[in-house]
Amino acid sequence: MTYHIFGHQVPDTDAIVSALALQAFFTAQNIDAIAYRLGNINNETAFLLQYTNCPNPPYLDPKNPFDTLTKGANICLTDHNEAIQSIHHLDDFRLCYVIDHHKINLNTATPAYVRIYPVGCTCTILLEMFDEKELTINPQLATLMAGAIISDTLNLTSPITTLSDRQALARLAQIAKIDADDLANKMFDAKSDVSHLSATEIILADYKNFLFGKDVWGISVIETTNPDSIFARSDELGLAATRIKAQKQLDYLLVVVVDIIKQDSFVLMYEPSLTQLVQKAFDIHTSHNNYLILQGVVSRKSQIVPVIERYYQSN
Amino acid sequence: MTYHIFGHQVPDTDAIVSALALQAFFTAQNIDAIAYRLGNINNETAFLLQYTNCPNPPYLDPKNPFDTLTKGANICLTDHNEAIQSIHHLDDFRLCYVIDHHKINLNTATPAYVRIYPVGCTCTILLEMFDEKELTINPQLATLMAGAIISDTLNLTSPITTLSDRQALARLAQIAKIDADDLANKMFDAKSDVSHLSATEIILADYKNFLFGKDVWGISVIETTNPDSIFARSDELGLAATRIKAQKQLDYLLVVVVDIIKQDSFVLMYEPSLTQLVQKAFDIHTSHNNYLILQGVVSRKSQIVPVIERYYQSN
Repeated sequence: MTYHIFGHQVPDTDAIVSALALQAFFTAQNIDAIAYRLGNINNETAFLLQYTNCPNPPYLDPKNPFDTLTKGANICLTDHNEAIQSIHHLDDFRLCYVIDHHKINLNTATPAYVRIYPVGCTCTILLEMFDEKELTINPQLATLMAGAIISDTLNLTSPITTLSDRQALARLAQIAKIDADDLANKMFDAKSDVSHLSATEIILADYKNFLFGKDVWGISVIETTNPDSIFARSDELGLAATRIKAQKQLDYLLVVVVDIIKQDSFVLMYEPSLTQLVQKAFDIHTSHNNYLILQGVVSRKSQIVPVIERYYQSN
Repeated sequence: MTYHIFGHQVPDTDAIVSALALQAFFTAQNIDAIAYRLGNINNETAFLLQYTNCPNPPYLDPKNPFDTLTKGANICLTDHNEAIQSIHHLDDFRLCYVIDHHKINLNTATPAYVRIYPVGCTCTILLEMFDEKELTINPQLATLMAGAIISDTLNLTSPITTLSDRQALARLAQIAKIDADDLANKMFDAKSDVSHLSATEIILADYKNFLFGKDVWGISVIETTNPDSIFARSDELGLAATRIKAQKQLDYLLVVVVDIIKQDSFVLMYEPSLTQLVQKAFDIHTSHNNYLILQGVVSRKSQIVPVIERYYQSN
């Protein structure tokens, strides 16, 4: 028996590292497990994997999972629980584990092992699981998991950060013998250098699908220490967004630039109907060049998705 | 801030005790919490509460939750996660915790704290939570939790029983200084004495709703050490089932008698369309008097619900 483990489509650092950590959790108990990635590795994650000499996990095509997995295979989801963010044909597999920290939209035919906590990062939950079984975490894995927490919590500054995340990052930094702030700076620099990326690549680097009511949304988040470098490419980004929205047959595609330093967000205005909807849902009226300003907003999960969800529920 | 905690409608022993245990888990940490029951206490649970000198938890009317709770109150679900088994207007509350061991059909607007494991009893998961925080369990609570595990796993004989359940029951029996087999016999005797109950009360004593495809099902389980006492009342049960099905506007109402001793189940044949569906779904052709025989079946959760779920998925 083997567990096949993967984070969400368009993986971010937590999606990749949480799958690797759950794999390590199983192999430390002599249980066969393989971690996969459902998409390309982004800049930040690529830096972290290189920094720790960790090879990229093998690719599992989310649209064609049967290329890699047999029907009925044992699968484990990390950093996501919604079918829309996972592999296709999810019902054709045996869902065994779900370790996540997002809102929940989950259906199973039989009971599964599920831990979903309202914490900043999936790796915070995984550290607890290692500790419960008194399993050792080596410095490489500790650095990777620390990097995932830094990534998801913007180095503990995002409002989704909990005491558990702070304690977990401190412990992991100690095990790895690293300075968390130093690692954070290196990761954010890697993330913010998008000069070699096309506008399409920038939008799809941190992108997730959501179902609100009957509408399919894409929400792209561009976290950066250098928002001006993104603002300079607004026209390009608007054209790319329009194209991606059509290609993916989305009802709406939200493109959000997050200034990691000042901790504000900027929603690209490239489609009047979307702009109006966002203005209503968030009750905002200020803009800056081509962007609506979401003051103090840095988290898709805790500050963007719930607002749109409630807007749909009450309209 | 107070947590309002409840198990599923038509509570069984685990639904009541898991809510009480989660309440104790919070109060041991100086967090305000109240456990409720969403329905009448059944024979077995009444015995256990009396045996431990534990008062009945207060009633929360699942159809009128606002009689007891204010809008937006913090709620915790134990021993269930599906809206159809919970209080009405679930979306009007803030779902904070879900501790359960059933198949999953859960949606939330924001992240919640969720532990759903494929174990025999919710109290097995709760014991782990007490242990993680190094909280003391007093003998009264240990007896209650042991009783819940005995109830859900039929004293560790049901196929849903896991090693974790065995270990949890052994530990709780030790804390409570009780003999688990002796407690099991007392509980099963209390459960099996239905002489004072009407056919309607017998059907509704351990009853749950399920949504399969677009059909609403009720599934009643009558666990007994004395199946002949139930078989003698088949005509009465058939009439009551037909009436309950109409009252609750169900598409199907399944009435299953479980022989705890011989570990077989018997499905009441009182409606030809239901009988045919069950014969197809379970691929069975043997009957005994007015009952289809499900050999070796004792668990609604692991041996009945998944079969019907799969039947709907493939038809």
